[in-house]
Order: sequence, then structure tokens, then C-alpha cells
Amino acid sequence: MMTKYQTRNYASRQTGKSYSPSRKPRRTNYYQQTLNSTKSERGKLKVIVLGGLEEVGRNMTLLEYDQEIIIIDMGLQFPEEDMLGIDYIIPNTDYLVGKEDWIKGIIITHGHYDHIGAIPHLLGKLKNPPMFMGRLTAGLVEKKIKEQPQCPKAAITIIEENKTIQLGKNFNIEFLRMNHSIPDCFAPIIHTPVGTIMHTGDFKIDYSPVNDKPADLQRIAQFGSQGILLLMSDSTDSTHPGYQISESSIGDEMSRLFEKIEGRIIICTFASQISRIQEIFTLAEKFGRRIYIQGRSMNDNIEIAKQIGYMKFNSQTIIHENEIHHLPDNKIIVLGTGAQGENNAFLMRVVNNEHRTVRLKPGDTIIFSSSVIPGNERSIQNLKDQIVRQGGKVIHYEMMDVHAGGHAKQEDLKLMMRLLKPKYFMPIEGSHFMLQAHAELAQQVGIPTNNIFVADNGQVVTFEVRGHETIGQLTKEKVMTDYVMVDGLGVGDVSDIVLRDRKTMAEDGMIVVIATIDSKTGDPIGNPDIISRGFIYMKDNKDLIQDTRMRVKKIIKESDPLLLTGTRGLGEDDQLKNKIRADVSQFLFNKTKRRPMVLPVVIKV
Amino acid sequence: MMTKYQTRNYASRQTGKSYSPSRKPRRTNYYQQTLNSTKSERGKLKVIVLGGLEEVGRNMTLLEYDQEIIIIDMGLQFPEEDMLGIDYIIPNTDYLVGKEDWIKGIIITHGHYDHIGAIPHLLGKLKNPPMFMGRLTAGLVEKKIKEQPQCPKAAITIIEENKTIQLGKNFNIEFLRMNHSIPDCFAPIIHTPVGTIMHTGDFKIDYSPVNDKPADLQRIAQFGSQGILLLMSDSTDSTHPGYQISESSIGDEMSRLFEKIEGRIIICTFASQISRIQEIFTLAEKFGRRIYIQGRSMNDNIEIAKQIGYMKFNSQTIIHENEIHHLPDNKIIVLGTGAQGENNAFLMRVVNNEHRTVRLKPGDTIIFSSSVIPGNERSIQNLKDQIVRQGGKVIHYEMMDVHAGGHAKQEDLKLMMRLLKPKYFMPIEGSHFMLQAHAELAQQVGIPTNNIFVADNGQVVTFEVRGHETIGQLTKEKVMTDYVMVDGLGVGDVSDIVLRDRKTMAEDGMIVVIATIDSKTGDPIGNPDIISRGFIYMKDNKDLIQDTRMRVKKIIKESDPLLLTGTRGLGEDDQLKNKIRADVSQFLFNKTKRRPMVLPVVIKV
Repeated sequence: MMTKYQTRNYASRQTGKSYSPSRKPRRTNYYQQTLNSTKSERGKLKVIVLGGLEEVGRNMTLLEYDQEIIIIDMGLQFPEEDMLGIDYIIPNTDYLVGKEDWIKGIIITHGHYDHIGAIPHLLGKLKNPPMFMGRLTAGLVEKKIKEQPQCPKAAITIIEENKTIQLGKNFNIEFLRMNHSIPDCFAPIIHTPVGTIMHTGDFKIDYSPVNDKPADLQRIAQFGSQGILLLMSDSTDSTHPGYQISESSIGDEMSRLFEKIEGRIIICTFASQISRIQEIFTLAEKFGRRIYIQGRSMNDNIEIAKQIGYMKFNSQTIIHENEIHHLPDNKIIVLGTGAQGENNAFLMRVVNNEHRTVRLKPGDTIIFSSSVIPGNERSIQNLKDQIVRQGGKVIHYEMMDVHAGGHAKQEDLKLMMRLLKPKYFMPIEGSHFMLQAHAELAQQVGIPTNNIFVADNGQVVTFEVRGHETIGQLTKEKVMTDYVMVDGLGVGDVSDIVLRDRKTMAEDGMIVVIATIDSKTGDPIGNPDIISRGFIYMKDNKDLIQDTRMRVKKIIKESDPLLLTGTRGLGEDDQLKNKIRADVSQFLFNKTKRRPMVLPVVIKV
Repeated sequence: MMTKYQTRNYASRQTGKSYSPSRKPRRTNYYQQTLNSTKSERGKLKVIVLGGLEEVGRNMTLLEYDQEIIIIDMGLQFPEEDMLGIDYIIPNTDYLVGKEDWIKGIIITHGHYDHIGAIPHLLGKLKNPPMFMGRLTAGLVEKKIKEQPQCPKAAITIIEENKTIQLGKNFNIEFLRMNHSIPDCFAPIIHTPVGTIMHTGDFKIDYSPVNDKPADLQRIAQFGSQGILLLMSDSTDSTHPGYQISESSIGDEMSRLFEKIEGRIIICTFASQISRIQEIFTLAEKFGRRIYIQGRSMNDNIEIAKQIGYMKFNSQTIIHENEIHHLPDNKIIVLGTGAQGENNAFLMRVVNNEHRTVRLKPGDTIIFSSSVIPGNERSIQNLKDQIVRQGGKVIHYEMMDVHAGGHAKQEDLKLMMRLLKPKYFMPIEGSHFMLQAHAELAQQVGIPTNNIFVADNGQVVTFEVRGHETIGQLTKEKVMTDYVMVDGLGVGDVSDIVLRDRKTMAEDGMIVVIATIDSKTGDPIGNPDIISRGFIYMKDNKDLIQDTRMRVKKIIKESDPLLLTGTRGLGEDDQLKNKIRADVSQFLFNKTKRRPMVLPVVIKV
């Protein structure tokens, strides 16, 4: 698709041209490499964001001071379009190899996958340091860990608003409650020997959140008045003007919707949108409807949240399989996953008539209660087509605002900066474009341009006391942050070469050319064989296959017999194989304008 | 991804479950098949839309009466995400096989690819019937035909607003000028023995179009007052409330933008947006800037439009390579393609530093002057990241309205129906969801529900006179509309099997297992060989490869020697190959949780 990373202004570097699947030119040579350097400069605080500065996802931040490290979040990222077959991407922790003992603790801001998803893969590797997080987050993390047998049992301490923890000698941490689309979000306020750092995690400004305490703006202002050295703040919605909508106003909107609907209501949202889900339960009880929950993650999350008291509803509100067929339609809500058109999610199974109990019928109203994640537009469009074909009515956030985002918009972001008045500012959690947009907002509220650090993943930011003040610097040092891709059980074992091969075969398929050669004379035995997959349908293209065979035979006959004779077995003579590959590739391209992967196999007998 | 088509309300059919790449369950058995039926029922008008009722793209409509057929548009569709390697899709014309002589003419409404793109592939096949279109459309079609050597020279007649053409005995056609994002759009008004049909083509209501005459609403109303039997109308924007913005107000907006920009302006838009491009030329002359045109299609289209008088600008406004380096930045506009993040388009080459003359630099403003086509969101996001990294400023339609769509929105669509008051209504040009939304608008303006036909591709609509009036019917007959995929030089030769193989290899790669067997004893000779592509990197996984080899050797040893001995050459014994395939697939899945394609090759010597 494209090469993602290129030169920046602040560093005069050559362009790293790279072919598509990798997307990661080897940029490391442009920076002074610090990978695995174990020296820690005394009196200097290093801030290193391993993931989340060039993408939405795989969030992970390190703070390092005098051989002590704390980690904030360990999330996953969903793969780019051209990372064929990859399940997800996790942060690269090569920098921490050999420094495991320095890690004094891991703080998790909230329970979404882009903040917790890498924990099961990394916890063992990092020698299982103590973890700190809210109660709901802990429930979700423990569930994820249980699913990954090789992950050690985590040592989790529950954090609260009025609790302070000391990690190592150098990090004293308080927590600010923040609002987002899931309860129990905490922003750590980290007091270090050189000053105080605040990391917002994901947040929105919500004066009337659902099922969660509102963020204490007074307390945020107090921290501000005590002096914040560095604010690291969520950039996800920094390109959107105005204010984010309160989750409770969504409730009002949905309430008006529910009032008018007479048939069944089928609502799809993310299983992680605990606040939205609570709202749906509240409305169900208000309108005398009962809820049939669908999707494993939906069930699990509701159970966890209910158990620890983060969701409140009458247990009778939930109905089971046998009850759904006996209740009248206007008493039913089906709550499930799949609003992004995900394969195998509840909604997709319903429209494909693959769901065990739920079939769509005229009179059903399907509410998509989540915004569209870029890349899913077509799947969602197809889903809507199918729903309408089956008689359902679709209500999507485009038509009516049934979705309030979880992230602060431009005016909200400015409010946070005005309350905190940080000396330095570092936009995090977004693509470079979003970080830049956030940086512009910081300029607008008066933070000096030189004090705004728009960093890349792995780029080292340092703070040290000089005279009477702490000076921050966006250095040109960079630690390793290459993608670590998870594919099935393999973590980091899918290389650029493997991805490039997948891409070639995805575009034009492949053909295997099998030539058997007499090891004494070098003559071909019989005609070469051809196997094609994903290129052309062999039965319909006999002439092309036959012509290819004859070309290969001719190449062998014309080759130097000295090259061809010798040991029996798989011929190792790359010269002949390269010749076959080049000739057949060109021949097939001329005939078809396609470029399948050509795989020559030469067998000597 | 998903199965796209499912049961509808009006026909009680079973679900056509189909695996992903095909997306087209074989629905034909649910309809009374009329494929290739050559009987034409006297006195009955058939309306058959071959493409454009289940997608945006591959528009093609047939009108048939007493062994005479006229065709409206022959467009292409861009492939769905899971059609790996496919270039585009064209309409299926199997229904026309044997009826080529019935075709009296082809009317092309305007020059966009989704209306003209299939012409070079279909014209020869349909025995080159006469074509009718506007002057600019003709220029664009002739260019497309020249690019495809096997296409016959087209017989094109230029149509005009006040011209009437007679095709065969049964079709008398007038043309209404419509507005869209390209000049020379015509809606045919087709007078048939059973009544008058209007096909809008793509349109928007624009009272002050750029470089094009406004649609004559009075004349539209006159046609309405004379009685329209059937209106077939553009549904592309039927889910969007309100009115479409006039192209000229975009000019005003851009003018305000241009006033403030001091550096170079780089504007990217579709080469087919001739109206927008004219606007940019007008503004360039107003602000004393000169234009450097980039992208082959951009150059071609401007040349065609200028030649036939559809674009007006001073030739001096265009500058060439040698001039761009001598002009001050505030005198330069670069106009190119690539606003969708397309590979190899102008903008992508610039940000990748692969462009011959243009490099981004701080002070440049890049204007994305086209809305985002679903599916391109991530590419565009990456593109913006790169532009910002190189110091450019991005202005996108999200931030400022620099894009007016080319399609009528809900209120515009209602206006068209109010002016025409058709007896029957058929929404066209959109996915099923969009057609349904358009049908609801038709109900709102008072068209009886029974007179609104939401058809599928290929579904036959008939009109015949009964007593004193013409009665329309949405029948259950359907003609073949399966996808015809174009891949390189191949048209329609990529089957579901080929696509499924591409998908398998894209996800998890493939391995070839080569076993050599003694044809006399049935014993394996040496160890089997393994070649892996896109699965794992062999050098890093020697143990897994070795284990696989040993399993294959064991399978051969344990097989019935009678099966294995016999003719030399490629062993045709499917039993052994199936056993190897099944065993190796399961083994690799257990070890890696991946499912590569396993290709066993058995050679007897």
C-alpha cells in the first residue's frame, strides 16, 4: 500500500524506501542507537513511548530514572491492511532485555485492548513485575491472562483515587479518576526526582458520566497549580473540533428511540463499552424490556462488571434461550457484538442465518451503537444491506447520534491543558497527524513551541535539573520499536519476507514447476509438471500450462549438462532454478499480465 | 468477510450460504431462470438492470421490447476487499448472447468509469452497436477504447439537449441535461410503446454549476406533466438528509482558502472531476498562480476537455518542469491525482520521494479535494502522517468543506420526484440499503408502495398495457448477473476456486511437500523435501521443518506398497496425497495455530 515512515523536519535523514508489507524502513541508522544500552545516566529521567505515537493502538510508555523503570500500559494494535494473516501487533520490548530487574511496576490506565492486550504476551518475558490498576481493569486483565496458558499469574494491586503508591526509590504515584467509555480509568500522576509527570490514558470530559464518577476537575486544577513538568495527553480525537458528547445524553437519545420502537430491539456495540451497556440495561428496565445477551466477550464482560459492582441491574432483566421465544417482541432487547461487521460476531451470524436462536424478521430494529472503525466501512455496508433485505430497520450513528465517542475533542483537550498548565507537553495515542494537530492546540493555549515534543515511537525524551529548573529535551536517540506481529501461536516470527510472499500469492497466486532430471546425463525425464494455485484455473487453461511445460523442458535441454548431473535428490543448482523462474515469470506475465510466484523444483534421479 | 446476499421479504427462498470470496450464493435457482431465453413477449417492455442495484458501480441497464434492446451505460466496479488481485468487475452480459442483433444502441449518460469502464471489454462482444453520448463523454470513451487494442473502433453519435433519436421501431429518445461532477451528463427520456421512462444517470441539483449549463427544471417538469411511466433515479446519496452543495459554493470556499495561503498549493482530486478542475484553473488565474499538472489521467482529461471546449483557461496558466523551479512558491499550484492514497498516484510518489520533480517542503499546503472512498481511510491516514512529517499542512474536506458531492441528497431526490410525478419508481445506482432508503423517500412524496420496485441485479421488471393503462410488475424472473472479474488480461477467468486459494495463501501461506518414491518397492527415496512460502521463515524453524519431513516419510512407509509402486512420474495416487495433506495440515495447525495450504507432490522414479 505505502511506505509509512519518511523523513521528518527535525532530522535531516535520507528517505527509507521500503516495499509495502514491511512499512517499517530501517530507520534506526538515522538515530543514535541506544538499543540495549544498560548504562543509566544518573539524575536523568528518560521518557520512552514504545507504542502509540505512530498509530492508534499498542500503547506502552516507559519512565526510567537511575536504573529504575515504570511502565504505563501494554496494549495491542490491530494489523494494517497489508499485514496479511496477522492477528495483532504488540510493542517491541527489546529495549528492556537485561533490564527486567529495573522494572518496579506496571500501571494500567484502563481495560481496553489497546492498553491491556499485550500483557499476556509480555508479562512472563518481563519477569512478572507487580501491576497496578482499577478493579474493573483487573477483572478484564485476569480474564485475558487465563486465556493464555503460558502467562504467569499476575500480581495485581487495585488502585484508587485517594491511594498513593511508591515504586522503587524514585517514583511516587497518585491517581486521577478519568472518564472514558469504560469505568475505572485512572491517569497516573508520577512524582519523580526531576518533576511531576501526568499521563492521561484515554479520556473524555464528561460532566455526567454513566455509571462512573465524574473526573474531579478541581483536583486536576490543584495538581496543575502545584506544577506539572510534563503532560502526556490522549490525541485520538485531536483533529475534531468542539466538545465530546456526554455519555448520559446518549442515554436520553436512546430513550427517545426506545419509546417509539414497537418490535424487537437488537443493539450491537463493543463488549468493552461497559458504560454504554449499563445505559442499555437501565433503559431496558425503564421500558419493561428484557435482555438476551449474545457474544462470548459481551457475556464475560457483563459478568465481570456485575460481580465487582460496576454494573447495576436486576438479574431478572437477563433472559435465556428458552424465554426469548415466549416473550412478545416489544419486551425484547438482544444485545450483542458485531457492529463493525466482524466475521463470526453475533450480528454477522444472525444475518447469515447461522445463529442458533436469533433470526431477523420484519419489525426488528437494529441499532449500531458504535462508530465505524476505519477499514470496516464496506463490511458494515454489506451488513446493512443484508439486514434491510431481511426486513430489519437500521439505525446508525450517522442517522441519529447514538454514539458518543470516548475521547476528548479539541476544546476538551484545551481545557485539560488550561487546568494543568504543564511546562512541557507531549501528545500521545494517535498517528503522527493526530499528534501534530494536538501540538497545534497546545500552541494555541500558550505552551511554547520548544516545549512541545512530537516524538516517534521509541524516541527518547529526557529531563534533568540544570541550576534551578528542569530542562526537557527531545533527543535523537531511539530505541527499537519494530513491529512484533502475533500470528497464531507465533510471536514475532512472521518476517517481512513471509509477509511479502503472502502478498505476492494473494495478488496473483503461485505455480510450482517440477522438473525431473537424469543425474547421469542431465536430460529431462518426461515432461515437467505444473501445479497452479490462485493463479489460473488449470482445467480452463490447458494450452498455457502445456506451453509452460515445453519452455521448461527446453531450458533444461539447453543447459550445460555439467551443471545438471551429479548427486541424486533435490537439485541444489540455483542457476537452473533461477533461469526457470525468470523465464516462466516473464512468459506468464506476457500471456496474462499477472505475476504469480514461480516455485521451481528440480529433482535428480 | 461475509456472504452478501440473503433472503428477501418478497420471495420465500432458502438462504444461500457461501464461503467468503464468492459472495454470490447461487441464487438463480430461486428465480425462474430466463437466461438466454430468446423469446420476446410481444407488447411487453422488459427493464433489466444488469449492474448497479447491489453496489455502487458496474452500472448497466437494458430496455427490451419486441426483439429490440437498448442499453444505458456500461460501467465497471472496483473489487471488494476479499477479491484478491482482481483489477475490477464488469457487468455480466450472458443474457445478451444470441441477442446481439436486437441491440439498437447504447446510451452513455456521462464519462465516469462506473458508467463507461466496461465499454472496451464489451463492445466487441456485443457486435459493436452504435453509441450515443455527450461530447466530453465521447472524448473519454475514445481514450479508453484506444488503450484496449482488441476493442473495435466505436461508432459514436454525439447527443445534445434538443436532439431526438429513434432506435429501432420502439424507442424514441430525448435527452435532459443533468448536473454532476463532470460536464455533459444526460438523462435519457425514452418513449416506448407502453409509456415513457426516465433514467437519471448520476445527478445532483445544482442551480449554479461550474462550467456546465444548469439542468432545465422547467423542462423536467414539462416531461412530468406529459406523464412519466417509470423514473429510474440515482440512489448514491439517498441516505444523506438535506441538500447537496453547489459546485460553485466550493469555488467560493476554495477562493477564501487560496487568499490566505502563502506557499505552494498542492491540490489532489479525481482526474474525472472536470468541474472541480475548471474551478481550480479559474482560481489560479484569479490569484496569479500557475499550474503544474501531474498524473497521466489528469493530463489526458484536461487535454480532452480543453480540446472540445469544455474547459476554458489561458494556455499560459499551465507550466512545465523547467518552470516550476524558477517561480516563487506563492505563484505555484500543483494539481494531481492520489487523494485516495492510491499506490503510484502523484501524491503517493511525492511523499515517498519517488517523484521526479516535486518534493514536499515546509510551507506547502496540500488540499485533499475529494471525499474518502470507503476502504481507503487507512491509506489516506498514512498519507497525511507522511505529509505532516515532511512539513506540509493538510486541508481535508473534514476540516473545511472543499468537497461538494456529485449526487443528489434526500431533499434533492424528493424534488426530482415531485417535478416528474412518475407512476412507477425504481431506485438505481446503490447498494440495497441505499435503494431502500430511496424507496422510503418515494413513499414520502406519495408514490404508492406497490409502484416502487426495489429490484436486485438482473431481476426483470415488466410493463404492459392492460385496458387503458400500463401495468408494471416486479417479477421473480432473474437473468445472470454473476461477477465477471478482470485480472490482468483475463476477463472472467478468475473463479471462486482461484480466489479461495489466494485467500488461503494470503492468510497463512503455503508449503510444498515433495516426496520421491521408488516405483518398484514403494519405499521413500531420501527424506521428503519441504518448501515454505508465506507460512514461516524456514531458516528460523528448522525443527518444525524436520519434524514435518519425518512425519511424511512415516506416512509413506506405512502406506500400502501396492498403492505406491507403478508408473514412474508424478504419482497420481490421490489417496497418499490426501493423507499427507490432512496429516501435515493438522500437525502444523497444532504447532502454530496457522493453516497454510499444503501441496503434496509425489514423484515416482
